[in-house]
Amino acid sequence: MEIVKPRTLSGFMELLPEQQVYFEKMAATLRETYSLYGFFPLDTPQIEASEILLAKGGGETEKQIYRFTKGDSDLALRFDLTVPLAKYVALNYGHLSFPFRRYQIGKVYRGERAQRGRFREFYQADIDIIGDGSLDIINEAEIPGIIYKTFTALGLKRFIIRINNRKVLNGFFALAGVGDQAGEVMRTVDKLEKIGSDKVRDLLTGEIGLGAESADRILELITCMDRGVSPLDALRAYQGQNEMLDQGISELETVTRYLDQFGVPRENFQIDLTIARGLDYYTGTVYETMLPDHPEIGSICSGGRYDDLAGYYTDRKLPGVGISIGLTRLFSVLEDQKYLNPSLEPSPADVLILPMTEDLAPAISFATSLREAGIRAQLHCEKKKFKQKMAYADKLNVPFVAFLGEDEISAGRVTIKDMQTGEQITVSPAMAAAGIADRVKEKRAVPPISEPAAD
Amino acid sequence: MEIVKPRTLSGFMELLPEQQVYFEKMAATLRETYSLYGFFPLDTPQIEASEILLAKGGGETEKQIYRFTKGDSDLALRFDLTVPLAKYVALNYGHLSFPFRRYQIGKVYRGERAQRGRFREFYQADIDIIGDGSLDIINEAEIPGIIYKTFTALGLKRFIIRINNRKVLNGFFALAGVGDQAGEVMRTVDKLEKIGSDKVRDLLTGEIGLGAESADRILELITCMDRGVSPLDALRAYQGQNEMLDQGISELETVTRYLDQFGVPRENFQIDLTIARGLDYYTGTVYETMLPDHPEIGSICSGGRYDDLAGYYTDRKLPGVGISIGLTRLFSVLEDQKYLNPSLEPSPADVLILPMTEDLAPAISFATSLREAGIRAQLHCEKKKFKQKMAYADKLNVPFVAFLGEDEISAGRVTIKDMQTGEQITVSPAMAAAGIADRVKEKRAVPPISEPAAD
Repeated sequence: MEIVKPRTLSGFMELLPEQQVYFEKMAATLRETYSLYGFFPLDTPQIEASEILLAKGGGETEKQIYRFTKGDSDLALRFDLTVPLAKYVALNYGHLSFPFRRYQIGKVYRGERAQRGRFREFYQADIDIIGDGSLDIINEAEIPGIIYKTFTALGLKRFIIRINNRKVLNGFFALAGVGDQAGEVMRTVDKLEKIGSDKVRDLLTGEIGLGAESADRILELITCMDRGVSPLDALRAYQGQNEMLDQGISELETVTRYLDQFGVPRENFQIDLTIARGLDYYTGTVYETMLPDHPEIGSICSGGRYDDLAGYYTDRKLPGVGISIGLTRLFSVLEDQKYLNPSLEPSPADVLILPMTEDLAPAISFATSLREAGIRAQLHCEKKKFKQKMAYADKLNVPFVAFLGEDEISAGRVTIKDMQTGEQITVSPAMAAAGIADRVKEKRAVPPISEPAAD
Repeated sequence: MEIVKPRTLSGFMELLPEQQVYFEKMAATLRETYSLYGFFPLDTPQIEASEILLAKGGGETEKQIYRFTKGDSDLALRFDLTVPLAKYVALNYGHLSFPFRRYQIGKVYRGERAQRGRFREFYQADIDIIGDGSLDIINEAEIPGIIYKTFTALGLKRFIIRINNRKVLNGFFALAGVGDQAGEVMRTVDKLEKIGSDKVRDLLTGEIGLGAESADRILELITCMDRGVSPLDALRAYQGQNEMLDQGISELETVTRYLDQFGVPRENFQIDLTIARGLDYYTGTVYETMLPDHPEIGSICSGGRYDDLAGYYTDRKLPGVGISIGLTRLFSVLEDQKYLNPSLEPSPADVLILPMTEDLAPAISFATSLREAGIRAQLHCEKKKFKQKMAYADKLNVPFVAFLGEDEISAGRVTIKDMQTGEQITVSPAMAAAGIADRVKEKRAVPPISEPAAD
């Protein structure tokens, strides 16, 4: 037979089994956490008609999309989970109850140039809350609580949820006489952290053509924290001069008012007036989440409030708020930074059972009773030497090995070896199951991520 | 803005939220059950190089595959999970420990003519155990135990795991003088249940050209159950005449010997000598799973033993055994047959919290404490009338609604309404959480499927 050299496409993540255990635990943690907030799970096809996915059209999307024909159909792979959600809500409007809350974890496709940390196929993990005509601001206030719970459940502690409000920016820019250049100004102030305020000022008064006074007013506001002034206090100085700005301030106040009740510690939260998150889509609160130890990674969870989810598919006004975690990229950067929790000890089983007799009945019965008790048990009956079997157990990271020899069987007992301590005990199957179950319970509670000690 | 009419491609399953809850519960049940047997989770890309997926080439696969180019790359969507597994094991051979056990639940693509119950995008849920050079027969014996536990965990009771052994068939056919026509004979006896033994005999002696004696010997064996003779007893009459047949009989004996220990009741298991499961791939035990109440559905879980997983990608001999559940189709037929368990009451939340005061702090704190206790809590703060909010709770199937008005808040209490009984109690938040948690625990244990009473 002619051999085809096996390979996996570049830009497509394919993990080894031990890595996959971590990834699965991260995905499971997201599902569980999102579920706590009343989100329906949702799944939509990975292929849609091209006219659906490209209704908005133009730009990077059109270049990066995987598009092809099958028979007479012009098809494409989804490039995010938001456009399919918009289609879904427009299509199923009559069957949904609003606010409609859904989470979705699924693969999306972008034909970007492959490079380290960039993926062409990657998981997004999104939540969105969609209103019918209107959506209360409290939904925007709830999002930081969800982000906080999600990342702490994953095992992270040092992360900062940064929020801003597009109404604040737009209102303030109007007040500062920026007018038509609001978009460019936003993109420029977004660079503050990277290039510093002097360069931002140069760009504003140079390329963008703002007057010196407008540029100074903008810089004074967005650098208020450097002078020890809280953004909300800095903003309040402008209250009553612009309706949009006032509304933005009020929304920011609401979103911060209930942080304690939503369980978000102050040190994990920041109002940051430089955050803009793209240009067209978002209309209210916007979110980013940063790891202060790794600012180079950028935001690991972003989103915001939008007024018109599905305008390409329906005349109905469907405002919403949502966030997205790029799970594949998050896994990749956390693994690179050695954040995978070594205590997890990725293993496919809690106990490996080695029968030592020809009659396998007692070993199989023991395996079955363990599984009934929710313990992951693997039988190992290959014709291998004892040493090879123990090496296999080692490689699989199983916490326990169970031996059933003639002596154990005639005494109705089983010998359990704790692979970590090397300790070995011979007990009844029920005792063995109870002991293993205790350890399993501990193990299950181990989060997939652990932060290295702070510098 | 020009409106694009929203639509979902035909042959692509897209569920409403309540249906999706059932589907997710089924997928979660498969993940949990498979995990109990020591399988690693695995995920591979949905796109592979066409040369990888089409290494075997020819036939229906080539016609049905979604194949396209992106830049210079000739790409295709996977049409099953077995070919990607073969590539994965060949590619990562040096990093894997054998036997390598993995489960994978993922979408696959086949451009079949769309018709009811046929999907172009569908989930498969596979397990495979791969040996390096050899794999003990006990792995084949374990599979019925896994199938049994999986379907009972889903909530099914009346199903029959049917097994056969390809060595038995091939050995017996050689003995009966069938020779080259073994493949055709297998396909023909596979029709026994559908067309009856007279027609099978006509086909065997007609089209296929067997002698009358050969045809009678074959029919006598495979219809042994009709005469009250067990297949193993019928086979034993031929023992010692053909090496392959003898080995097949010995394997069948081993696979049935430990059924009790693996927890499989006799009424859920059958040796069925008519089962062949395709022609080339399988070499030992083969499995099918039928619903006796719905034979028209065909097998809902099939698989078998193969000797050469990855011959297209490596010279190494990698034998294995695996089964596959077509999850999308299974969901679809079970829903059609009204098997979705009404007791599940699909809901995105365990409790809907209705704050009745302007200050939302107590309601939010209550929601946060419920979530800390693992209870799914949704805040409903939209500006709607009370009646509309209760209608929303009804539509979402939430089991409890919590009210926090002035009276409750000043007394440090919360009013909980049981939506099923209509009963309403005012208690401390901690008491409320404990009561809800009890019900939640019950609810979580409800399987997604329930069988209608037997006729």
